[in-house]
Amino acid sequence: MNRQAIDQVTGRSWTTRRDQKNSRLEKIKCFMKGRVLPTDRIVNALESILAPGDQVVLEGNNQKQATFLSRALAMADPNKVNRLHMIMSSISRPEHLDLFEKGIARKVDFAYSGPQSLRISQMLEDGQIEIGSIHTYLELYARMFVDLIPNVALVAADKADAEGNLYTGPNTEETPTIVEATAFRNGIVIVQVNEMVDRLPRVDIPASWVDIVVQADEPYQLEALFTRDPRLITETQILMAMIAIRGVYERHEVQSLNHGVGFNTAAIELLLPTYGEKLGLRGKICKHWALNPHPTMIPAIESGWVESIHCFGGEVGMEAYTAARPDVFFTGSDGSLRSNRAYSQMAGQYGVDLFIGSTLQMDAVGNSSTVTSGRLTGFGGAPNMGHDPRGRRHATPAWLNMISEEGTIVRGKKLVVQMAETFQKGDQPTFVESLDAVEVGLDANMPIAPVMIYGDDVTHVVTEEGVAYLYKARDLEERKLAIAAVAGVSSLGRYHDLSLNDQLRSDGLVAFPEDLGIRRTDAKRSLLAAKSVEDLVEWSGGLYKPPAKFRSW
Amino acid sequence: MNRQAIDQVTGRSWTTRRDQKNSRLEKIKCFMKGRVLPTDRIVNALESILAPGDQVVLEGNNQKQATFLSRALAMADPNKVNRLHMIMSSISRPEHLDLFEKGIARKVDFAYSGPQSLRISQMLEDGQIEIGSIHTYLELYARMFVDLIPNVALVAADKADAEGNLYTGPNTEETPTIVEATAFRNGIVIVQVNEMVDRLPRVDIPASWVDIVVQADEPYQLEALFTRDPRLITETQILMAMIAIRGVYERHEVQSLNHGVGFNTAAIELLLPTYGEKLGLRGKICKHWALNPHPTMIPAIESGWVESIHCFGGEVGMEAYTAARPDVFFTGSDGSLRSNRAYSQMAGQYGVDLFIGSTLQMDAVGNSSTVTSGRLTGFGGAPNMGHDPRGRRHATPAWLNMISEEGTIVRGKKLVVQMAETFQKGDQPTFVESLDAVEVGLDANMPIAPVMIYGDDVTHVVTEEGVAYLYKARDLEERKLAIAAVAGVSSLGRYHDLSLNDQLRSDGLVAFPEDLGIRRTDAKRSLLAAKSVEDLVEWSGGLYKPPAKFRSW
Repeated sequence: MNRQAIDQVTGRSWTTRRDQKNSRLEKIKCFMKGRVLPTDRIVNALESILAPGDQVVLEGNNQKQATFLSRALAMADPNKVNRLHMIMSSISRPEHLDLFEKGIARKVDFAYSGPQSLRISQMLEDGQIEIGSIHTYLELYARMFVDLIPNVALVAADKADAEGNLYTGPNTEETPTIVEATAFRNGIVIVQVNEMVDRLPRVDIPASWVDIVVQADEPYQLEALFTRDPRLITETQILMAMIAIRGVYERHEVQSLNHGVGFNTAAIELLLPTYGEKLGLRGKICKHWALNPHPTMIPAIESGWVESIHCFGGEVGMEAYTAARPDVFFTGSDGSLRSNRAYSQMAGQYGVDLFIGSTLQMDAVGNSSTVTSGRLTGFGGAPNMGHDPRGRRHATPAWLNMISEEGTIVRGKKLVVQMAETFQKGDQPTFVESLDAVEVGLDANMPIAPVMIYGDDVTHVVTEEGVAYLYKARDLEERKLAIAAVAGVSSLGRYHDLSLNDQLRSDGLVAFPEDLGIRRTDAKRSLLAAKSVEDLVEWSGGLYKPPAKFRSW
Repeated sequence: MNRQAIDQVTGRSWTTRRDQKNSRLEKIKCFMKGRVLPTDRIVNALESILAPGDQVVLEGNNQKQATFLSRALAMADPNKVNRLHMIMSSISRPEHLDLFEKGIARKVDFAYSGPQSLRISQMLEDGQIEIGSIHTYLELYARMFVDLIPNVALVAADKADAEGNLYTGPNTEETPTIVEATAFRNGIVIVQVNEMVDRLPRVDIPASWVDIVVQADEPYQLEALFTRDPRLITETQILMAMIAIRGVYERHEVQSLNHGVGFNTAAIELLLPTYGEKLGLRGKICKHWALNPHPTMIPAIESGWVESIHCFGGEVGMEAYTAARPDVFFTGSDGSLRSNRAYSQMAGQYGVDLFIGSTLQMDAVGNSSTVTSGRLTGFGGAPNMGHDPRGRRHATPAWLNMISEEGTIVRGKKLVVQMAETFQKGDQPTFVESLDAVEVGLDANMPIAPVMIYGDDVTHVVTEEGVAYLYKARDLEERKLAIAAVAGVSSLGRYHDLSLNDQLRSDGLVAFPEDLGIRRTDAKRSLLAAKSVEDLVEWSGGLYKPPAKFRSW
């Protein structure tokens, strides 16, 4: 059957998406002035544009939220707008879930739901929401170009001009990626902006990619997610940071890296200019970063440790500081920070030696998850950064250091380090027989358990007891022993046969502080380059402007 | 030591990159009209702008080449411009290597060097070129945001307006990614354009990201790399395509995929509307693609097999066809194709069920490489797509189908299929004792052998003998046996004990055509939906305009 014959049979149109887009935009033409929609018309416009069952991306990541648009969507009439299939990096706000309770939306594919994890679990149990899959961010973006292509994108920008060009500035984040997937597949791109201006500082997204710009009634919500107050860093965390610096960073010559969010990694950042300096490591380790602009990085930057930082997003209060350090940060022609979540995840996957993160639970073979009973938190970026990218072919000292086999065909590995105190708050042991995630997965009828990082991807476990060098384990038994040796007085640790430790040490499978030349008594808060947010401000020469809740002076 | 004290010691400036950029641009100000440089000033400008040792990205991928700029760079005076560190997706043109012979450049980090692989090997041996690493594309882009940040980017676009906005159109490719890494780190972005226009069809890259636009003396070079003439498809390739469709695509319900370039995969594409249709597979498999616009996809698209294709780049002659099929392809507001290499590689890594490619050499455990003696070809996109992305967390039927272990914590796998006839042209056996790549790696002092796809990442091997289901192998021994069983009369196949085959079949480790209900005698060219380029043109309703070298009528 040739083409003509097929066409006769199917009478197929090849422009259904474009035609649909045009006819939807036609319906709101009366409201529009060029690409600009009046603020008070947003609910009408959404009701006119959205069709039942549409795939809709709602921008809401772990920092920036398209709050004006999410509130407007939740106000839509469920008789007009219903059964939407939402695609969201992060389910963060109450109205995100209201959408499902009201029947406006039915299904969701997402990456992270920390703040709403309890409620989403309950709604799932009650059959009020259908979950497609839980993703890591980059994976979710990838699917936007394959089988989760958006019909409509609802995103947020700082400023627009009358033409519809956008400035997304320090919090550019994932906006261009979402917009590209939508705009170039004849989807409709709707952007809330904080401000309309005559001339943008720079163009982050061209007007050719945008359909509707609407000025929000208030600026989009922005969370200071990566700010950690040094006052709250404990001496146990400082000890673990010393262990990580000597036992991992120095030993393997880690030059490029990503830090997860948390006090453990904040402690490492604040020890570089003191403990790291004393060890003579400046210029040898920690030069290139894929990282949000953590305020706790300021002392290391100011002391000349850091050559470059590419950012996933911005951080509230760090705008003036990042703008004043263009030798370190990626900034635009206007001088302000440019972030890009997709590229930074790509950099954090393929371009760095090490990922280090914290976990709440780890089982005996090193699997870990932040999904715990009753909480469907999702994964965020951890799976993407916390695995060995097997497509990688370039070698660095740290990567080559992970080769543990002999042979003519071998390859290095990314360092994936999990840091955990052996007990969490409330005396919950970190090391458990079985992850809660296993049961959560079964309860929610997931095809597989929602594991965040798999044990066979972890190369190192750092606890206050020492380091387990899992990449050296020749089999599952050795991996278990190495983990148990640093599991402290948790039940996993208590059943561990201490007489094996000397062999494990000499095989290089574990190292305790004394093996690393670390005295536990040296782990004092006085080692921190900054002991408070105020100190960070001072290090920054006043450029860092912490949000009110972090100001104690 | 606090910040003030540090500043006194170091007297450090934080704007060295920006200052350097400004002072370099100042030197050519006399030539410039806004952002536009006259064509005949390009060599002067490069000599003024480039400093010894600069990291320079020269756009040259497997299709689009910034030929005007590469020729201009090769004409620069080596006394002024020297020891450049080149970052290139592809070393494709003679002058790319002339740069090193003349001393203009010294070191290179790259992904692919097919057309120049012989000469680069020789130059390496002669010490005329220093190789950083060989990468897969996405990995190279990742490093542009980490430790290979460009000082200068030399790229190509179709059109620019007087302000410096760019239209890159169907061949957008990697241009925005390179430009972003450079522009936002105070590097200098120089763009050759085919044409200056008053108004662009759409904006692909905003002027805010561009420093210098120069009209080229002739349009950039563009290769029709993904065009395969159906006339040249053999019956062995048709047999292998039938085996792949039944034994892999149908069996595992493969819904999203990437095809490597070559006649093997072209045969699959041309069998979907015939053999695939007969099997009733339309709508069940092969719906979503990360793929260049292969002309051999036209019959499958026209017969309604394809829901979406996201493209790495364009394909010469496919412009009008892709523009007329916006329901399938990603197109811009102007209606023409938009490609994006970085996002398509991301989609091909994280968003698809299957990658299938061809190889020249495979060893007994399934490692393969296109690097053969005397040829340092590099990898291209194969390592990125030909591995299991271990950060993936979403499930599809095909992915879940790869679970071969039992347990509470398991995960699926991407299907990585290697297709190979057991003998290559000139009777070279495909299956070898040891990959040439091992010796090439040793000779070139590489830290590890340049393997393209590792055996432990391969899930299936398809030959004209049958399929080896490597994902089912419980150990290395079983993997070897399964490969040997389909290795034909190569030495690997000849030593294989045929009496094991029944066991291998019943264990599901191999399937031969008869096991799949395929009669070898059915593998006829009459099964191809198009038997010539002319047929493809007819299927396209005249929209496909093949380049002259593919026209035989």
